[in-house]
Amino acid sequence: MKALVYYGPYDVRVSEMPDPKIEEPTDVLVQVTTSNICGSDLHMYEGRTDMEKGRIFGHENLGKVVEVGKSVTNIKVGDMVCMPFNIGCGKCKNCEKGLTAFCLTMNPGSAGAAYGFAGMGPYSGGQAEYLRVPYGDFNCLKLPEDAIEKENDYVMLSDIFPTGYHATELAGVKPGETVVIYGAGPVGLMAAHSAAIKGASKIMVVDSHKDRLKLAEDFGAIAIDSSKGTTVEQVLDMTDGQGADRGCECVGYQCCNTHGEEQSNVTMNELVQAVKATGSIGVVGVFVQKDPKSKETLEKKGHMDFDFGSFWMKGQRIATGQANVKSYNRELCALISAGKAKPSAIISHELSLDEAPDAYKHFDDRDKGWTKILLKPGQKAKKK
Amino acid sequence: MKALVYYGPYDVRVSEMPDPKIEEPTDVLVQVTTSNICGSDLHMYEGRTDMEKGRIFGHENLGKVVEVGKSVTNIKVGDMVCMPFNIGCGKCKNCEKGLTAFCLTMNPGSAGAAYGFAGMGPYSGGQAEYLRVPYGDFNCLKLPEDAIEKENDYVMLSDIFPTGYHATELAGVKPGETVVIYGAGPVGLMAAHSAAIKGASKIMVVDSHKDRLKLAEDFGAIAIDSSKGTTVEQVLDMTDGQGADRGCECVGYQCCNTHGEEQSNVTMNELVQAVKATGSIGVVGVFVQKDPKSKETLEKKGHMDFDFGSFWMKGQRIATGQANVKSYNRELCALISAGKAKPSAIISHELSLDEAPDAYKHFDDRDKGWTKILLKPGQKAKKK
Amino acid sequence: MKALVYYGPYDVRVSEMPDPKIEEPTDVLVQVTTSNICGSDLHMYEGRTDMEKGRIFGHENLGKVVEVGKSVTNIKVGDMVCMPFNIGCGKCKNCEKGLTAFCLTMNPGSAGAAYGFAGMGPYSGGQAEYLRVPYGDFNCLKLPEDAIEKENDYVMLSDIFPTGYHATELAGVKPGETVVIYGAGPVGLMAAHSAAIKGASKIMVVDSHKDRLKLAEDFGAIAIDSSKGTTVEQVLDMTDGQGADRGCECVGYQCCNTHGEEQSNVTMNELVQAVKATGSIGVVGVFVQKDPKSKETLEKKGHMDFDFGSFWMKGQRIATGQANVKSYNRELCALISAGKAKPSAIISHELSLDEAPDAYKHFDDRDKGWTKILLKPGQKAKKK
Amino acid sequence: MKALVYYGPYDVRVSEMPDPKIEEPTDVLVQVTTSNICGSDLHMYEGRTDMEKGRIFGHENLGKVVEVGKSVTNIKVGDMVCMPFNIGCGKCKNCEKGLTAFCLTMNPGSAGAAYGFAGMGPYSGGQAEYLRVPYGDFNCLKLPEDAIEKENDYVMLSDIFPTGYHATELAGVKPGETVVIYGAGPVGLMAAHSAAIKGASKIMVVDSHKDRLKLAEDFGAIAIDSSKGTTVEQVLDMTDGQGADRGCECVGYQCCNTHGEEQSNVTMNELVQAVKATGSIGVVGVFVQKDPKSKETLEKKGHMDFDFGSFWMKGQRIATGQANVKSYNRELCALISAGKAKPSAIISHELSLDEAPDAYKHFDDRDKGWTKILLKPGQKAKKK
Repeated sequence: MKALVYYGPYDVRVSEMPDPKIEEPTDVLVQVTTSNICGSDLHMYEGRTDMEKGRIFGHENLGKVVEVGKSVTNIKVGDMVCMPFNIGCGKCKNCEKGLTAFCLTMNPGSAGAAYGFAGMGPYSGGQAEYLRVPYGDFNCLKLPEDAIEKENDYVMLSDIFPTGYHATELAGVKPGETVVIYGAGPVGLMAAHSAAIKGASKIMVVDSHKDRLKLAEDFGAIAIDSSKGTTVEQVLDMTDGQGADRGCECVGYQCCNTHGEEQSNVTMNELVQAVKATGSIGVVGVFVQKDPKSKETLEKKGHMDFDFGSFWMKGQRIATGQANVKSYNRELCALISAGKAKPSAIISHELSLDEAPDAYKHFDDRDKGWTKILLKPGQKAKKK
Repeated sequence: MKALVYYGPYDVRVSEMPDPKIEEPTDVLVQVTTSNICGSDLHMYEGRTDMEKGRIFGHENLGKVVEVGKSVTNIKVGDMVCMPFNIGCGKCKNCEKGLTAFCLTMNPGSAGAAYGFAGMGPYSGGQAEYLRVPYGDFNCLKLPEDAIEKENDYVMLSDIFPTGYHATELAGVKPGETVVIYGAGPVGLMAAHSAAIKGASKIMVVDSHKDRLKLAEDFGAIAIDSSKGTTVEQVLDMTDGQGADRGCECVGYQCCNTHGEEQSNVTMNELVQAVKATGSIGVVGVFVQKDPKSKETLEKKGHMDFDFGSFWMKGQRIATGQANVKSYNRELCALISAGKAKPSAIISHELSLDEAPDAYKHFDDRDKGWTKILLKPGQKAKKK
Repeated sequence: MKALVYYGPYDVRVSEMPDPKIEEPTDVLVQVTTSNICGSDLHMYEGRTDMEKGRIFGHENLGKVVEVGKSVTNIKVGDMVCMPFNIGCGKCKNCEKGLTAFCLTMNPGSAGAAYGFAGMGPYSGGQAEYLRVPYGDFNCLKLPEDAIEKENDYVMLSDIFPTGYHATELAGVKPGETVVIYGAGPVGLMAAHSAAIKGASKIMVVDSHKDRLKLAEDFGAIAIDSSKGTTVEQVLDMTDGQGADRGCECVGYQCCNTHGEEQSNVTMNELVQAVKATGSIGVVGVFVQKDPKSKETLEKKGHMDFDFGSFWMKGQRIATGQANVKSYNRELCALISAGKAKPSAIISHELSLDEAPDAYKHFDDRDKGWTKILLKPGQKAKKK
Repeated sequence: MKALVYYGPYDVRVSEMPDPKIEEPTDVLVQVTTSNICGSDLHMYEGRTDMEKGRIFGHENLGKVVEVGKSVTNIKVGDMVCMPFNIGCGKCKNCEKGLTAFCLTMNPGSAGAAYGFAGMGPYSGGQAEYLRVPYGDFNCLKLPEDAIEKENDYVMLSDIFPTGYHATELAGVKPGETVVIYGAGPVGLMAAHSAAIKGASKIMVVDSHKDRLKLAEDFGAIAIDSSKGTTVEQVLDMTDGQGADRGCECVGYQCCNTHGEEQSNVTMNELVQAVKATGSIGVVGVFVQKDPKSKETLEKKGHMDFDFGSFWMKGQRIATGQANVKSYNRELCALISAGKAKPSAIISHELSLDEAPDAYKHFDDRDKGWTKILLKPGQKAKKK
């Protein structure tokens, strides 16, 4: 089959790879019809991880089931399915509590398993014609009848929609509350969409990119341009001087200060100031345990100059981590099907697999307008 | 009346002060029968705060009601009552949600109000013969019939028992779970007692003082001597290598490394390592917004070199802040009354008010055996 | 002042009554600008309660503060305020936990206190020019700057909006879930509005009145005409045969079967069938402890022929009771102010106080189109 | 192998049956070392269910793994394991949320699956030498090293300990609260034990059997003899006239009035009276959807004359259903291992399989002292 393969930093190519096949009686084989490029793919693309050469990228996958192992009982050939980026066994202490992002058996000793991801197990990604799904009954979400019609919405159930939603869950957003979201990338926008779905009264989204802030406004949020350097003041002004009830961090360790320089503590320390005493902060932006290429001494070892004193005095809470996608994907799927959620609104490009190497380059260069790219392995190349 | 008055660093004296009186129709006047010395009193005693000279110390108070304002309806003259150290108005947005430690009106702009405390409003403390209690119906807990018999237990409802309990609530301790508690001072011991009450299966308490660790064992905990420098390894060994389900920080910014030097991030960074992925950490040890006398650059401005990368990768949670005492004091009172809680087990000294200056000196010197001191303003001096 | 006074069954008149005045230092005096007629007023109007003659009706009140007692600190003369129908003391064991509908001191021995209500204390209602509000700081919600512009929305914060919202809280409605609501009266409609705010994926509203079902559809719900006798089948059909995730009872003991006869168990037993196994049911429709005029033997003593066997086998939950309005009114207020909630959409009439007796008659006769009536004590009579 | 087989009402015999074998790659085969007789076995024994003749009883099972299917990854041959009585698939919408008692695939259309149980699927029971466990990784709890030493404690993890604990979870018991438990059979006793573990301040257990009340006292509870007919008054007296904070129903539809006659609403209606306003009731006693042999008209169709009016006016909650054993068994296992739970205290008999028919007769006759019987299939007959 054809697949997007990693050859080294800044070098991904579409190559012929062996077709995956059923290896265990619990496996499911999927013909991929959509696989997205995710911001976290860029870390690997840039060579800032220990991703092995020769592996296939792609952890945001949707497709049609073409074969099932003999122990698979719920998923059938022909089903349209979307796969959470987390791969869970469904049987360990964490999976049985819904903590599928922290499965103890699929990638022992680590924070969980995923398709086509550095440090998250040996599983191939879905930027390819076919994908093997371990424990297929557990790891496939069967989509409703409008699966093909709304495929570009449903594919967001694999990662960014549940991850944005997770930010609001970690922050504990409740109806009528105010929320400030740092980051208007795909995940931040999905957090804004989720906060609106949950009935937040005021949603403030902070970013320095005007095109992304425009998308945030389309989701009903108030845009705050962080390049002005008055973010905290603006949030306090809009919340009676108290700060927002809840905050979401959707940027991660490569966040920048107003000079556009990477400074890993900017978003967190601003959130402590911008969120009210007794408020909560959900952190889904990625922070890493070591970052040797950083210019900051603390950040090199994954540490942060954190304003713990203010955090404690304000009696705040922080909750972190990757989204347990399965905890949310059924309900978010129902909202898409009912027309009450439309995550596809952020898509900028739909491309064929052959166009993927070029797309990676544009996306990595942060070229204007390259917000969210969907790859369609079954399609011939054509520009959107 | 006689009261313990602050004259400056390391200088407290028993002086004659004007009797407090009913100032508002909602006030209650209490004849103090017990008032504890708290570890946080020492910060003021040492002159490390901006405490005003001439003020009366004491925020852990219990006594008999001697007068009530005309709008007081529930509390009666003669009632034995224990006062939460937090003073709430009972009417603001925070108080009505139970967040009495963050009352918005009793000390506007700050993290709440308290008796005899630097930066927490103008209220006099209870290390005196009498105490004025604002909003008396709201701020007095009426004690059961065995109030006098168990006075030394009930007085712990003012602060350290609810504060230790709060640590376990912030950490989310549930029956059958494992807990690691940093700090075997009065609050850490109360956290251990609370974790046992909640049905934790394994309670590990970390400290470098052997006498305190002995008390922890008396509450059913496993003692870990932090001076050995193997705390994290020991916790991992006792939890199948996964880490404890929950962690409690009961030390605060003056925690020390194995060399006995203050290093504000020791307990927090060890907790991140000693608690499992997906686990939670409750922080009731005090962390401050600035600490000019610290030797650490970050700590001077209230910041911390925090291992945020590991914290995030493990998907952990931290919850912080002062205890909302009223959220717990009725239930903890019921447990004392039923004989199922016995916080008085940590008391080392019961002294008269006249002995207070001497007691402050011993306590501040960390003299062996001076664990918890109760002052009895109505008693004549006698050594315990 | 002028006020609507109860003279006996089916006999209410506008009479001159003494002006209320500040009785306690904690009182607030309000000039009523809007007071709604509630469905529960009709029970008293019809003489089916032990309401005393000479009392003033009205528990859904909004107005301007004209005087405050000397212990009132947060509310000021001139503030526009909306009062929860529950009157709480703010100081008892229940109020301090937010259970203001079950205040232990304002009407001891009963389920709480309210303005102008049979069996809920001696407090006068607000269908009058002025209203005394006990514990004014606690029982007044200060409205935002657009208070007058959106007065018809904000007045709904006194009762039906929080009560409808309470139904969804008791039922535990979460984003993406399906909900079936029995009753499209004002409270049922507010439950539908609340479920939409909370992000329910499918909201089904059951009633036999076509005009009310039309309003339900305006709030985004699916209307089910109960007179067809196929309600349960329709709900199952729309929920993959499993039943709705959550159910709300917004009718109460005078619910009717398909023949239009009162049968107190119709809604509850249908809900058990229409809600999925492991689902939850919130009950805010009123059920009474005795109903001597009922034709049913069990109902006379307040009992019900309830399908407990199916309820248990399905592992369902029921939560009941009057809304603790203060638990929700700040957040719902924020949603109105932000334009994200519009409860005034159900209003059918705005009338002067003089028109109230006539309005009671129409409302009690269930005359078509008399959905929700607002009285404006300050206005001269004019037909809407 | 030898197994206890149902031949018809009051007729169970030890017979030779075919050995079970691995049928699916996900199966596990267990050599049963302990299998308890449960009160719910008696319903089948008495012929009050539609249990098929020829089936093997036993849903409380513990043993040693002797064979595993090729897809089993976590459980190994030689492991000592305890099986929840619920059989879940681990992959359906309910199992993935922890609702294993309501698995949608193992016994479609019903409330879940179990071993050797009428109406809960075709699965054989464990009162036999061997047992086939479907989805063995999901349905086996691996026991700690002291498995054999504490086997009589660990076997209680299969059903009654988690079921009693479930009662307290459904009721929402929190530290310091008061609880009233109806029923001092094995499940009621486990509820009392669980409430103590959770830190309840006062645990009242209601029953008419003096020997069972004695066991309740051994678990730290206050015994209330229901035959005196003053249960509600006693509970109110012990709770300041307010009623208990929480209630647990551990009897079920065959509960009796003070005349010793079955009356299905006795426990529920008393609980409504004995529990405070705003309190909660957890119901794990079994209530059925039809009971043709009952003398009560309502009960024949599974209905109840329920005091819904008082229930609603008090704003109470009821939660029901079979325990999702897997939600609790790991934590309860940890408590047993730590010596903080000792459910074996209620065992009255340990017998060989050959003695089972006789034991069933004694147990069904409610012979004094036959509280809880453990069958040891590997042992030769000997009287305890």
